[in-house]
Amino acid sequence: MAAWSERLAGVRGVLLDISGVLHDSGEGGGVPIPGSVEALARLKRSQLKVRFCTNESQKSRGDLVGLLRHMGFDISEGEVTAPAPATCLILKERGLRPHLLIHDGIRSEFAQIDTSNPNCVVIADAGESFSYQNMNKAFQVLMELDNPVLISLGKGRYYKETSGLMLDVGAYTKALEYACGIKAEVVGKPAPGYFQSALQEMGVESHEAIMIGDDIVGDVGGAQRCGMRALQVRTGKFRFSIYLTLTCVHGMRPSDEHHPEVKADGYVDNLAEAVDLLLQYAHQ
Amino acid sequence: MAAWSERLAGVRGVLLDISGVLHDSGEGGGVPIPGSVEALARLKRSQLKVRFCTNESQKSRGDLVGLLRHMGFDISEGEVTAPAPATCLILKERGLRPHLLIHDGIRSEFAQIDTSNPNCVVIADAGESFSYQNMNKAFQVLMELDNPVLISLGKGRYYKETSGLMLDVGAYTKALEYACGIKAEVVGKPAPGYFQSALQEMGVESHEAIMIGDDIVGDVGGAQRCGMRALQVRTGKFRFSIYLTLTCVHGMRPSDEHHPEVKADGYVDNLAEAVDLLLQYAHQ
Repeated sequence: MAAWSERLAGVRGVLLDISGVLHDSGEGGGVPIPGSVEALARLKRSQLKVRFCTNESQKSRGDLVGLLRHMGFDISEGEVTAPAPATCLILKERGLRPHLLIHDGIRSEFAQIDTSNPNCVVIADAGESFSYQNMNKAFQVLMELDNPVLISLGKGRYYKETSGLMLDVGAYTKALEYACGIKAEVVGKPAPGYFQSALQEMGVESHEAIMIGDDIVGDVGGAQRCGMRALQVRTGKFRFSIYLTLTCVHGMRPSDEHHPEVKADGYVDNLAEAVDLLLQYAHQ
Repeated sequence: MAAWSERLAGVRGVLLDISGVLHDSGEGGGVPIPGSVEALARLKRSQLKVRFCTNESQKSRGDLVGLLRHMGFDISEGEVTAPAPATCLILKERGLRPHLLIHDGIRSEFAQIDTSNPNCVVIADAGESFSYQNMNKAFQVLMELDNPVLISLGKGRYYKETSGLMLDVGAYTKALEYACGIKAEVVGKPAPGYFQSALQEMGVESHEAIMIGDDIVGDVGGAQRCGMRALQVRTGKFRFSIYLTLTCVHGMRPSDEHHPEVKADGYVDNLAEAVDLLLQYAHQ
């Protein structure tokens, strides 16, 4: 691999994933990843532009930012690209009235949306609300539509909470896709339009931007397909992938650093190391 | 299409799907499909061999047969090929100890199976037991295995109950496959081995056998891939597909009689019509 100086040259803007980079989510909001509060503060004092790009779909943007600020992170609502507000724009533009299969924590984001007589389904990381009854209701709504539209807030396979790995929205989206014979529209990483809107809001061109995340497909692969560079941190769900590398002999799950299709522009232990490198080598 | 006399010539054995052909399942066991009790009785009085081949995975074989007998059907446990007993054979042969993500109604089928320290997951139509917590537990078991094995009792997309369409096991299997990056082994229709075991138990070669079912993929396509003929009945979930044909303009769900890949050897209104035709034209 080329030297860091070469890989990071010309970076002007940094997109940061939140869960697995700033903190590990979980009961009571989770815990900050060691060194990340200070690393973010240093990054924001630099000349680099910073924006947050998350697939969080259990909490409203306000609640998420409140939790992170409480942990000491320098972050405000206006700096966060999140899938629920992006979805609301799409629903309004297209005159869509959703049946919502979502977590109660994010329902407030849809307060201004007409949900009467639904003509689409919006699915987010509903957690415990992914009951059979709720899944079946969403399925039945889709099957009754002439033109079934399913909008999925991200397509993550799983994420790591302090208590362990948790199934993410992507798994349940696959279930509805298969049952209905349809394909969901994804709002969130790795959808190119989602990264592009985050770049636009940051005011940086893709070739001058770098994504930092813990998900090799959603963060790294998605950003690279938009012409950005991307670093993978060895925190969040990444740590579990390392464990898999060591234990997985016959399994079909590739380890992240040896993913068959996606190669990050660099691997770092955590956000603190990423910021060290960026402050040293970006802008060159 | 060729004449019925040609399409049914030489049939010696009949495999019957149960749900959607004999009865519509639902609260209290569901209701018989009009004419099916008498049609089965006539079929069993003929020289044709008869066997039942079901993907039922919410009820034990004994309970299912009890319900059907109560409705008036001439059926006994020994005549039924069902996925749970077939799965138990596989588990024993391969020394697999399952974590069971199943409906309580079928738990008795696994009474003789060692489920300590699981080294695989068995998923069936768990219905209301497909809670987030139960799905997440199965996911975590798989992610902790060096060689994750997921056995799925069928891969149905949905089925019809008297109260409406219900998500079937296939949807939840897709969710786990996607989350874990693995592929499930299917025990049940349309797996070729499953049809072959039913044929063997009936004592009829595939070219002399015909499948009668309401599922164009699971019943018709699966049987044809094993060299059997297959009729689709316009009862059970088929009736809903008709509705889709009429209402579905832009959707991606093909109607069953115009399925892009699977063509039945014949379409009949119900089991009664199928039996009329078989008694008239088989054996010729």
